[in-house]
Amino acid sequence: MVSSPVVNTYPLSSYTFGTKEPKMEKDTSVADRLARMKVNYMKEGMRTSVEAILLVQEHNHPHILLLQIGNTFCKLPEIEGLKRKLTSKLGANSPALVPDWQIGECVAIWWRPNFETIMYPYCPPHITKPKECKKLFLVHLSEREYFAVPKNLKLLVVPLFELYDNVQRYGPVISTIPQQLSRFRFNMIST
Amino acid sequence: MVSSPVVNTYPLSSYTFGTKEPKMEKDTSVADRLARMKVNYMKEGMRTSVEAILLVQEHNHPHILLLQIGNTFCKLPEIEGLKRKLTSKLGANSPALVPDWQIGECVAIWWRPNFETIMYPYCPPHITKPKECKKLFLVHLSEREYFAVPKNLKLLVVPLFELYDNVQRYGPVISTIPQQLSRFRFNMIST
Repeated sequence: MVSSPVVNTYPLSSYTFGTKEPKMEKDTSVADRLARMKVNYMKEGMRTSVEAILLVQEHNHPHILLLQIGNTFCKLPEIEGLKRKLTSKLGANSPALVPDWQIGECVAIWWRPNFETIMYPYCPPHITKPKECKKLFLVHLSEREYFAVPKNLKLLVVPLFELYDNVQRYGPVISTIPQQLSRFRFNMIST
Repeated sequence: MVSSPVVNTYPLSSYTFGTKEPKMEKDTSVADRLARMKVNYMKEGMRTSVEAILLVQEHNHPHILLLQIGNTFCKLPEIEGLKRKLTSKLGANSPALVPDWQIGECVAIWWRPNFETIMYPYCPPHITKPKECKKLFLVHLSEREYFAVPKNLKLLVVPLFELYDNVQRYGPVISTIPQQLSRFRFNMIST
């Protein structure tokens, strides 16, 4: 039997957080988002999106970084066009300060069968033309990084035990991240 | 980015199912089970258990094999002592017929902090002496196998879409298997 893959995590205190200009969402409502998705599907076919799981540690327990818009909606940082988008969302404007994003393991793939909010962790039977395929990747952080958070967003640091079994607050995709990360061994490095 | 790991799945019809003598559970109730766990912990420390996810396909959708005791309780085949136990649970009594179990990827690790039924997909903070660590492994089946099901158990073939979001029926461990398998690409081989 193979041993668990290892992920190094560093204390939250070893990271620095600043702010930068707001990054506006392209859509102001879920209905707008789904309508734009439909238009894009006609032009480009199935959307493939990539989101990032960034891990830190606090009190010897893994925490993930989530971006909050307003007071309710939480999402993982996107890595559409890979590192470019992650830099746009969380990197400093000065290239020298941009984190060295290390894209790691794919931990989950979700499918959107229709132009609706509901997604599944498999392509449902009889769906031949899914509208979106969203992949979640672990991003390995270096020991020190500077994150620049757009002024219209809040960066939350959420422990796995808060996400677990909390579909009401975080939705089906984010609330099952603890189960998907369970196979990893966290090497909690204190600095 | 690495591509998804591939799992070959074969149609349910390519497998043969027979029966064999009952394999009785060592405990007749959950309370008995937890009491025996406590005794064993005193003697041997944290229990490490291993369970198997066996996949087949039906109608182009992955299904997992579950063993049912009575009419409600479902569990994954155990692989305590690895292949030995899997053979005891599902292998024919004749050694020539025993499936060639190929233990694959670890897909989840669950922790039992106390002598209670509740488990978590991480070791909860402040728990220094967890009582059990249960690992779920994918088992890669060959194209044809003969399974011998103990007469007191039923072997169920459950599609991922039935498990998903069905914690009421399958419990937290089995109901999130679809999310843990989502990162794999299923190569549905028709024979």
